[in-house]
Parts: sequence; C-alpha cells; structure tokens
Amino acid sequence: MTAYSDLAAHFDRAAALANGIGILQWDSDTMMPKGAASTRAESLALLRVLHHNMATDPRIGDWIAASESEDLGPWERANVREITRSFTVDTAVPADLVEASSRASSRCEMAWRKARADADFPALLPYLEEVLRLQREIGRVKGEKLGLSPYDALLNGYEPGGRSARIDALFDDLAQFLPGFTEEVLEIQARRPATPPLEGPFAVEAQRALGLEMMKVVGFDFERGRLDVSTHPFCGGADNDVRITTRYDESDFSRALMGVLHETGHALYEQGRPQDYIHQPVGQARSMSIHESQSLLMEMQACRSREFLTFAAPRMRAAFNGSGPAWEADALWRLYTEVERGFIRVDADEVTYPAHVILRYRLEKALIGGEMKLADLPGAWADGMKSLLGVTPPDDRLGCLQDIHWPGGGWGYFPTYTLGAMTAAQLFDAACRADPGILPGIAKGDFAPLLAWLRVNVHGQASLLETDELLTRATGRPLDASVFKAHLRRRYGGEMEHSAAA
Amino acid sequence: MTAYSDLAAHFDRAAALANGIGILQWDSDTMMPKGAASTRAESLALLRVLHHNMATDPRIGDWIAASESEDLGPWERANVREITRSFTVDTAVPADLVEASSRASSRCEMAWRKARADADFPALLPYLEEVLRLQREIGRVKGEKLGLSPYDALLNGYEPGGRSARIDALFDDLAQFLPGFTEEVLEIQARRPATPPLEGPFAVEAQRALGLEMMKVVGFDFERGRLDVSTHPFCGGADNDVRITTRYDESDFSRALMGVLHETGHALYEQGRPQDYIHQPVGQARSMSIHESQSLLMEMQACRSREFLTFAAPRMRAAFNGSGPAWEADALWRLYTEVERGFIRVDADEVTYPAHVILRYRLEKALIGGEMKLADLPGAWADGMKSLLGVTPPDDRLGCLQDIHWPGGGWGYFPTYTLGAMTAAQLFDAACRADPGILPGIAKGDFAPLLAWLRVNVHGQASLLETDELLTRATGRPLDASVFKAHLRRRYGGEMEHSAAA
Repeated sequence: MTAYSDLAAHFDRAAALANGIGILQWDSDTMMPKGAASTRAESLALLRVLHHNMATDPRIGDWIAASESEDLGPWERANVREITRSFTVDTAVPADLVEASSRASSRCEMAWRKARADADFPALLPYLEEVLRLQREIGRVKGEKLGLSPYDALLNGYEPGGRSARIDALFDDLAQFLPGFTEEVLEIQARRPATPPLEGPFAVEAQRALGLEMMKVVGFDFERGRLDVSTHPFCGGADNDVRITTRYDESDFSRALMGVLHETGHALYEQGRPQDYIHQPVGQARSMSIHESQSLLMEMQACRSREFLTFAAPRMRAAFNGSGPAWEADALWRLYTEVERGFIRVDADEVTYPAHVILRYRLEKALIGGEMKLADLPGAWADGMKSLLGVTPPDDRLGCLQDIHWPGGGWGYFPTYTLGAMTAAQLFDAACRADPGILPGIAKGDFAPLLAWLRVNVHGQASLLETDELLTRATGRPLDASVFKAHLRRRYGGEMEHSAAA
Repeated sequence: MTAYSDLAAHFDRAAALANGIGILQWDSDTMMPKGAASTRAESLALLRVLHHNMATDPRIGDWIAASESEDLGPWERANVREITRSFTVDTAVPADLVEASSRASSRCEMAWRKARADADFPALLPYLEEVLRLQREIGRVKGEKLGLSPYDALLNGYEPGGRSARIDALFDDLAQFLPGFTEEVLEIQARRPATPPLEGPFAVEAQRALGLEMMKVVGFDFERGRLDVSTHPFCGGADNDVRITTRYDESDFSRALMGVLHETGHALYEQGRPQDYIHQPVGQARSMSIHESQSLLMEMQACRSREFLTFAAPRMRAAFNGSGPAWEADALWRLYTEVERGFIRVDADEVTYPAHVILRYRLEKALIGGEMKLADLPGAWADGMKSLLGVTPPDDRLGCLQDIHWPGGGWGYFPTYTLGAMTAAQLFDAACRADPGILPGIAKGDFAPLLAWLRVNVHGQASLLETDELLTRATGRPLDASVFKAHLRRRYGGEMEHSAAA
C-alpha cells in the first residue's frame, strides 16, 4: 500500500457516504411523504457529520505529505492537489462555526419563507444579519488560510481559482453592453409579428413523455439516471445515478421542456465524468461555472437554436396533437427567444439574466466586504435594478427577497450563473468551429458530434485541470465576454432579423 | 445526563443511520437505474459497517451496567432489556465471521439464481455448504452465549424468545390436522360450482388506484408512507416513512390487490409503533411472527372474509368497469378462498401454506443440528412434500431450489410465517370477541374498530413485552393451534358450505 492508495481508498469511502446522502436528498425532494421530514432530517444531519469527519480526518494530511515523494501520474497528482485544496479549507473552519452557520441558515430559511410571502424585509433582517455575520467569519477564516479576501474565499468554495478582480472586469464589460443592447432587442422584437398562443391544456403524461424523448435525443443515459418531479427542479443523485427533476404546468409545456433540457445538460456532465476517478475528488465536476456552462450550453446554445427547434417542432406538435401556426418551428423559436424586462431572476431570459446576477454579485461582495449595511439592501437593490435593467420592483418580494441563496448561506455563488453563460457560449462556439458537423447534427436531432466534443474537452476532464486551463485548452483562450456578446448579437440583435428572414 | 439518556441518544443516532439504510434499500428495489448497482452496493456496505460499529460500540456495555442503578420506568427498563439482548448477541459474533458469512451468502445467492433456473441442485451444493457451515458456526457462537442450541440461537435472531421445542409441538399438531383437512376441503370445493373467470386486461393504473383506495379504507397513513412497484413485494422504508410495494399483472388484478392489503398489514404495525420510542429498540416490532401476524390478520382474517369481500366487490367492479357474475361478492369470495395443492410456497393458499413451512422448518433444523446432510436435501424435500401435502415436485426448481432464504443466509426464519398465521387467527378472534363491532365495521369498509384494538394491543406495545406475554395479555393465553384450526374449519370445512348457503 502506498500513501496515495490509502488516500484514494479513504475518498472512495467518503464518496460511498456522499452518494448515499445524494440519493436521500433526492428522495426528500421527490418521493418522501411529508410526515417523514423530521426523521429524514436526523438521518441527513448524521450522515453529513460523518462525511465531514471523513473529509477532515487528520490522516489525510499525513497521506498527502507522504504521497509527495511517490511516483504518481497526472491524474493522481491532480487528485492530491484537489484533496489538498478542500482539506486545507475544511480543516481551517472550526466545527462549532460550521454548526452555528448551518443552524443560522436553517432558521433564516424558515424566516425567509414567511418574510418573502409577506414582502417584509425588516422581519428577515435579524436572521439574515446572523447568517451574514457567520458567512463573513467563515470567509475570514478561510481567507486567512488561502491569502484571499473573505469574499474571494467564499467564492473559491464554489469556483476554485475564481477571483473577484477578474469577475469585476468581465461583469463590468457586460454591464456596459447589456442595457443598450436590451433596449435594441426589445425594439426589434416589438416590430415582429405577435407569437400565436399555444392552446393547452398539456397533459402531464404527454409532457413527461416528450421530456424523456428529448433527453434521449440529447444523449441522457437512462441506465444511469432518472427523470422525476420536484417543486424546485435540480440535478442531483449520485455517481452513475444522476437524477434530474422538473415540474409540470398543464397550461404551458414550454418551460418544463426547456427545464428538462437544462438539467440534462448538467446530467450529461455528471454522466461523462471519468469512470476511473468517478468517486475521487479529481473525478468531480470542475467548478460551478463549468457545471452551469453545461446546462446553459445545452439549453441556451443548442436547444434554443433555430436548428434544434426546427427538429423539435413536429415532435412537440405530435406530443400534444397540436395544429395551427403556433406549432410552426419559427413561432416556437420566437417563443423560446422572447426577451422581457422582469423582476424575477429565475423567470429571466438569456439577455436579461446577467443583469440580475451582476446586481447580486455586486451587492453580496459589498456586504461581505463590509462596504454596505444589510439594512440598506432594499434601496441598493432598487437602484441596481433601475440602472442595470431599467425597472424598479414594486416590493421586496419581487426584489431582494426573491432568492433563497443568501438566507440559506449561499454567498459567493451567484456569479457562477453568468460565468457559466459566458463559458457556455465560448465552449459551444469552439465546438462548432472544431467540428462543423455539430450544428447540422443538432438540426437532425443527432447530438452525438456535440456530445463527443464535450466528453473529450469538458466532461472527461473532470477536475484534472484548473478552470482557466480547461477553457484555454478547449477554446484557445481564457474566459472573456466577447463570444457571449457575439452570440447575443447574432441571436437577438440586428443580425437576427436578417437570419430570421433568410 | 444519565447513563440511560446516553444510551438512548446513542440509539437515536443508530436509528438515524438505519433509517437512511432503509430508504436506500427501498430505492435500490424500486427506483434505482441498473447502472447504479455497484455504486449503491458500496454505499450500503459502508453504511451497514458503520451501523454495526454503532451497535457494538463498547460504551453500550458500560451504559447498560450504569443504568441498572437508575430509576427507570417500564418502557425505559424494557428498552435496556432489548438493547442488552441484541448487544450480547452482536458482540458475541466475531467481525470476520459476520463478513465471511455475508460474502458467502452473496456468492451463494448468485449461484442460486442460475441453479434454480437450471433446476441444478448439485451446482448450488458447494456454495450452500459454505453458507450452512458459517450459519452453524454463527449459531454455535451465539448459542454458547445464550445457552441455546445453534438452531434456537439462529431462530432467536428473528423470533426473540422463540424455541424449537415449542414450535415442534405447535407444528406437529398442525401437521397431524392439515393433510386430512386439506383432503376434505378439496372435496368440498370440487363440489361447488366453478368460479366464473374475471375478464381482463386490468390496466396497471386502475389496479394502482384500487390498491390505494383499499389502503385508505384499511387505515394506511399516506402522510407517513407510500405505495410503489418492485419485483418482490415488501414493506420497508424508515420510521414514519413506511414504504410498501407490489407488482402488477395486467391479466390478474386479484393477487396484486391482496398483496397490497398484506403489506398494508405490515405497514399499519410500523405506523402504529409508539412515537416516544419510535427510534429506540423497545419501539421496534416485537418479532417476525408478530409482524407476519399483522400482515396475515389483515390479508387472511379481515380481507378474505365474506364481510370485506362483500364491501369490496362493487369497488373492484367499478375500478375495472366489470360486469357479470364473476364480479359478484360470492364469486370473488370463492376466488379468494380457493385451495390447491401446489409445489410453490409463495403461491400457496391459507390451508396448504403451513405444510410448506413445516417442511422447511424440519429440514433446516436437521441441517443446522447436523442430523442431515445437505446432499440429501432434494430427497428429503420430496419425501416431506409427499407426506405433508401429497404431491411430489417434478424437479428441484419446483422443490428445494425455490426459496432465496437459505442461499441468502436466512436460517431460522421460516417458522415465523406459520407462527404468524396462527397468531393472526388468535388475535383476530380475540379482537372480534372484545369488540363485536369489528366484523360489522369491516362489512361497511370501516376498519377503525379493528385498527383501534390493534393499536392498543399490538402496534402500540412494540417491544415492551415479550412475545408470549403480549399474546397472553391480548388474547388471554399463549399461542396454540386451536384458534387457527377453528378458523380454517369455519372458512373452508363443512361449516363453510352451511354459511355459504345461508
């Protein structure tokens, strides 16, 4: 036995535990009867403590040190690097701080549910103050260990290697571009003919069958995954057992369908991680921005394309026995590319979504950095919405109370959404240039060329490389905003009208 | 903190783990995609090791000793008794013996699947020899600790307090009664008019809806449980999260429906355990015979009664839009009380089932006791079937290869099926005498009176009392065969014809 093999065996056991937790969490969100909630909470809490104990086992430090002198291949070396990364951080935060933060977040989440319903930010304030205080403390402790600011230390937990200085530059670029561009798109869309309405109802069973058909088309492996229903759609489960969910609305099938394709993008990443390292840290998804890039590449780049919607239109029509002009490919494409200024992030389209994220990023950075008081959040939110998106929410329910992330202790997460959107554009562009068969394939419902490129360049790489290196190798350069902006211009800007008319 | 409260807190944690295992096992049997099997096996193996470690934690012994001098109520005292019981046995068996036995059983189960398909007992023999050898060793080790024979020590694991001397007497009584009685019943049934066939197909969705309707009628709490599909029906899940399964055959709804009611009987027991001790050993089901008594009380005593089938007939008819004489209550009652001599235990009816069990009990006792060689099993099986049931299986697939219990390491379990059937008869008889409203209630689909009696006398008692005491308090005497025999005579014997004609 080498130190490395001890390390790997330890993380195989940790993964066995994490996989159990993943399935139990999925069950809580999809299958569990209500009355089991407290019994389940006890099981999950215990398993999470056991997992934390495994992840911070002091032997890990010894094995890491001893493995330095061992002869390891590049994957093994990267595995030690990934293990070191999380071990350093996990052991830096005292257990009582982890527990206090987890308890504060649970309490705050409960308070948030009521405060949001009542549009009552002051009712949430004391709970959120406590969550923020503990998050700042966690950020401070981790940051000291890593030589990072508290915010960057939190960000680093979701986006290893991510730095706010870099994100500032990327987001400032977008923030300059988007308000004017959104204006331009809205004018263009106002001039085009109205989209005829799709007549429902759309039976849940038919929606589910169509979702499954499309999952198969894009390449979901049903031998290693499932589709179910939950209130909040997600991609979860375990290694080789990837479970995505959606929710159905019988008056509108279009959202559930695109939601399924979004989660399928996440799932393809999970299903494409390398089997040899599937349970090891190096075999996990690289970062949240790369994960989101895979869902957005599938949803936004591939499946809202004219090519895919031309292929899918007759299948949608057949699924619901539809007829008439609303079911034409062009009408469906217009439906799926409609841009609107709204208050709610999760309802936002591809063009306006980044504004929601940039706002949250700037605010949480200021809050963690202590440059802003939490009591000033509603006002700052309204100002930000006005300047970035040109609208002002009528109340805090449609403003700073809409997301669960902050109450739930998820600080430093928001920027990964828009980093993911930009990454998706850059990856898809590179893929299509590397293999000119990809878009014609999508037009025929053949995703094999796209999937093959993603398997080699993203999924199969897992955490072998750092995010920047992964992207540079796949696309020729690190992340910048230009490809994303070009994509938006092409799909929604002046050029769109040309291509739509062609 | 008292020693007792430490003990209880420890077993709360063990239950949190066991509940997680229960849901993951359920998921493996109902939801899991095939490709996840090996990942799941790793999770379950790890969690079972962790659970075993908790159950054999040496601190338990100290807490037990210290709690002796503490002032405990009857439930706490019984909890210490139950903890002591399993701790004594669990710590007696060396970990390597547990592991060797578990591995031998896994290998043997695999060999059994093929050997059964090929009707090839010699192919199974070496694997089964190894399982038997290790089971005898486990029985010997446990027996030494408990002052019991190896067989009684194994039996004790499923049926705490159960002893083969007692079972011998009960089963000899039945074995004397049944062959002649079966003969008599078959003659009676041969004379009655043929049951008209139910015309299918019976759509799975309609079967499921009917099953759910009947579960509700009997009193299943859907806030704390579910119904799903699996290859082998079972009742599993977790505390306050009781999950039963069935399988559907579109050409015959009658078996799935009665199977659902059988599992619902198990589930009502689980759902009726006392909330104050739901996670503690004293709050668990008393024994396998009592558990089986609850499923058989519901299925055999309550739901195959003329009263219930009269209530259910129009609901079955409505579920499948049935019409004609096959849907009359009397025809359905005859269908559900048909007796037939067969080779397969799981297909057996209430009258012939005990013969299958008595045979297995006698054989496994002789095998564990070393009074019989495993190579002689097929011959002994054929002889036993002939003398107990009057039929001879044409091959070992329909003979000694039919059950998974022995290959899977389940020795000492079989007798609990028939102890359960006898217990069910005795409990149901006592319930109906205690509350004359029970049978009229069932005839109207009102199970509240029956459930109320079971809650007080069985479910809510959990493991407070020993099995004999539980039964004596509930029915006035310990288990004997007389009430079961009287039940069979009344339903299937000469008296039946009278009552059927009335």
